[in-house]
Amino acid sequence: MQTVPPALERLIEELTRLPGIGKKTATRLALYILRRPASEALSLAETLSELHKSIRLCGSCFAFSETDPCAICGDARRNTRLVCVVEEPGDLMAIEKTAVFRGVYHILHGVLAPMDGIGPRELKVRELLTKIRKGDVDEILLATSSTVPGEATASYLMEQLEGMQVRVTRLACGIPMGMDIKYADEHTLARAIESRQSMAS
Amino acid sequence: MQTVPPALERLIEELTRLPGIGKKTATRLALYILRRPASEALSLAETLSELHKSIRLCGSCFAFSETDPCAICGDARRNTRLVCVVEEPGDLMAIEKTAVFRGVYHILHGVLAPMDGIGPRELKVRELLTKIRKGDVDEILLATSSTVPGEATASYLMEQLEGMQVRVTRLACGIPMGMDIKYADEHTLARAIESRQSMAS
Repeated sequence: MQTVPPALERLIEELTRLPGIGKKTATRLALYILRRPASEALSLAETLSELHKSIRLCGSCFAFSETDPCAICGDARRNTRLVCVVEEPGDLMAIEKTAVFRGVYHILHGVLAPMDGIGPRELKVRELLTKIRKGDVDEILLATSSTVPGEATASYLMEQLEGMQVRVTRLACGIPMGMDIKYADEHTLARAIESRQSMAS
Repeated sequence: MQTVPPALERLIEELTRLPGIGKKTATRLALYILRRPASEALSLAETLSELHKSIRLCGSCFAFSETDPCAICGDARRNTRLVCVVEEPGDLMAIEKTAVFRGVYHILHGVLAPMDGIGPRELKVRELLTKIRKGDVDEILLATSSTVPGEATASYLMEQLEGMQVRVTRLACGIPMGMDIKYADEHTLARAIESRQSMAS
């Protein structure tokens, strides 16, 4: 028997398509939305409808932005000759939060995943190489994740950049700040030892 | 500086209002929605807009339903003289999944929470008592949660029902099925011992 009203069931199904949202969470969220005033659901609906209309990709760094160039690429105080290459817009947001990086970005929109049919052409690789060939870049900071696909993507880019007049750097890997060494996994610890740094005297 | 486009920021804020969704999860969900085709965001937006329009409360049990009476109250095979009292529509859905209960429901839409200003008048208590006074009910199964407010609400209802011509029952409490006794908390275990049952010989 139909004990869940179809309109509610539909919302539960749609929420289940979101990453990390299972049937139980979707049901809880849908019931919450239903219990709250209709105005809140309508407000969320409107925000969702506007989302893709207002946001485009920045033509230079491919970040999500309402303007082209985006706020970062259009900021005269940023060093456009230092380019940080990240996988996803979320990575850009994480790095911006540190307020340490004063260069600009280049968003690949993914990582190499040959098994899923994602090669360099599916990513913004060609656009990056064009930028460098034009001589607009002094340093490329490869800030892909230290996961297997992230490392593979960084290696691929490093090969492509060989012989080009550009310095290539990579985010440092090591023990996370505040972490007890005995809880660090062996790969991280091995990398931290290999990449050990001289103490300033 | 504004590095998150306002339309995206707005969606993140709205998602953060949902229960159990923090800033990080909201950001992840919003970026996911943005990366997917606009049609999916629009479809979710439409479902949200339709939600409150299509769903009302059943006039008899106060379940969310697109019809009045709801599918359960309108089903001639259900025993309308056995009424299961639950806190929320989600509880009804959980009990229906067991396919064991053949009576009907009465949804309180909350629990007593005097500190938050929620007394019997804020819940569907009067409607329940009216139903019973009319002589339409043989048995009330109190299926509020075995939490402090759930138990308090059940106790309050039990007092109100005293002297009325109706049998009052409560969901059994004890060790969850499949649980190792040594992992059961002491309150559950105490209750399971007090409520121990004779074995059928």
